[in-house]
Amino acid sequence: MARIRGTQKALELLAQMTTWIVDEPERYRGQWRTSFFQNDHPLHIELGTGRGGFLLALAQREKETNFIGIERFAPVLAKAAKHAEETGAPNVAFLHEDVTRLPAFFSVGEVDRIYINFVDPWPKKRHAKRRLTHTNYLRLYKQILREGGSIVLKTDNEQLFEFSLNEFAENRFQLRGITFDLHHSEFAAGNVITEYERRFIEQGKQIYRCEAIWEG
Amino acid sequence: MARIRGTQKALELLAQMTTWIVDEPERYRGQWRTSFFQNDHPLHIELGTGRGGFLLALAQREKETNFIGIERFAPVLAKAAKHAEETGAPNVAFLHEDVTRLPAFFSVGEVDRIYINFVDPWPKKRHAKRRLTHTNYLRLYKQILREGGSIVLKTDNEQLFEFSLNEFAENRFQLRGITFDLHHSEFAAGNVITEYERRFIEQGKQIYRCEAIWEG
Ligand SMILES: C[S@@+](CC[C@H](N)C(=O)[O-])C[C@H]1O[C@@H](n2cnc3c(N)ncnc32)[C@H](O)[C@@H]1O
Ligand SMILES: C[S@@+](CC[C@H](N)C(=O)[O-])C[C@H]1O[C@@H](n2cnc3c(N)ncnc32)[C@H](O)[C@@H]1O
Repeated sequence: MARIRGTQKALELLAQMTTWIVDEPERYRGQWRTSFFQNDHPLHIELGTGRGGFLLALAQREKETNFIGIERFAPVLAKAAKHAEETGAPNVAFLHEDVTRLPAFFSVGEVDRIYINFVDPWPKKRHAKRRLTHTNYLRLYKQILREGGSIVLKTDNEQLFEFSLNEFAENRFQLRGITFDLHHSEFAAGNVITEYERRFIEQGKQIYRCEAIWEG
Repeated sequence: MARIRGTQKALELLAQMTTWIVDEPERYRGQWRTSFFQNDHPLHIELGTGRGGFLLALAQREKETNFIGIERFAPVLAKAAKHAEETGAPNVAFLHEDVTRLPAFFSVGEVDRIYINFVDPWPKKRHAKRRLTHTNYLRLYKQILREGGSIVLKTDNEQLFEFSLNEFAENRFQLRGITFDLHHSEFAAGNVITEYERRFIEQGKQIYRCEAIWEG
């Protein structure tokens, strides 16, 4: 776990919270439903889940879905785990891992939906490969998404949104539910607000959102 | 032609300009290349061509393409024809017609590209069907576009752009070259500025642009 950032204290905390932070997630590859959650519900994952507010709220609303949040930065993930402990969340787990390693944790077609919320926009062109919607990342997601599965993206960043639409389209994802102003759209009602989203709303920023369906 | 708007004077003018404004365009359906232009160049059409500035400039740049502009409002089309006469434009024609009648003028697969520039956004929801990128219109375009042919859209209107992206995607067009700020994008260099575009640039507005490819 050397590559993963975090203070010593946060790392120790995570090591104690194995109910919520899954140790050695490779073990469950292809078996999240059968071995880990022990049900046949769909599996939705969130990339860069931060403090987990979004995932935990969604998990309370959608009890018939299994949720896994992936986050590489220990201090925020420790907060997510604490939050999970307080609320009790039988259908939630977190991985202290990097998104680049997704195919090590999920088998082909195992994931039904991927949420990507307010990830770092990496505005400089030479950093484009770090954007979580870059073609290289989309290739990873295709490896784990089932046919008909989808990615749901939210961002405040116009450039990242523009970039993402092009990347999705060029990689033959089917775009749906595109909105440039989520909170004044038909998607406002069902929307669960993330921590970053809350700040952007307070700043009066408009939020971009789309779905990208993988048809195999 | 009763349904088509125009003053008596403009209509008379159009009737005299049969070199540029094609009379009874139904005659050339399926035969624009062979009978009208008498070459085998690709056919690009523009919907709501206005005074024709865009089409005529493009036609001078791309001499190996045939261009047809469709416009229902006689006074602006008269200006387009006059402009064509002044510049001489062997690869351009105009139709004084309504877009709804496209399949009467073009046969299946006859058109290689459709340009839609700064059309009326019809902001009210109950007028959505009038937007030239509404599903009902896209169905018409599919009837005349060849497989691999495309629609190129430009607009200053964010809502219309959002709407259009969704309509294209839902109708199984492949989106490409999406930009939210054309004049600061890779597409700026090759761009031909339309009359409306000129005004919007002067107002400091950003211009949205995309391509929608029809793969049949
Ligand atoms: C800007 S924050 C957004 C947090 C949360 N999604 C929200 O909307 O409030 C982005 C998060 O993604 C995490 N992250 C970025 N790249 C990652 C990667 N490759 N693997 C795992 N986590 C990543 C960061 O550590 C950070 O916590
Ligand atoms: C806003 S103007 C833009 C003109 C030009 N494309 C430009 O960018 O400068 C839209 C034009 O589309 C024409 N138009 C709108 N709906 C049309 C239709 N259904 N058939 C033909 N022309 C139409 C209008 O008459 C008008 O001239």
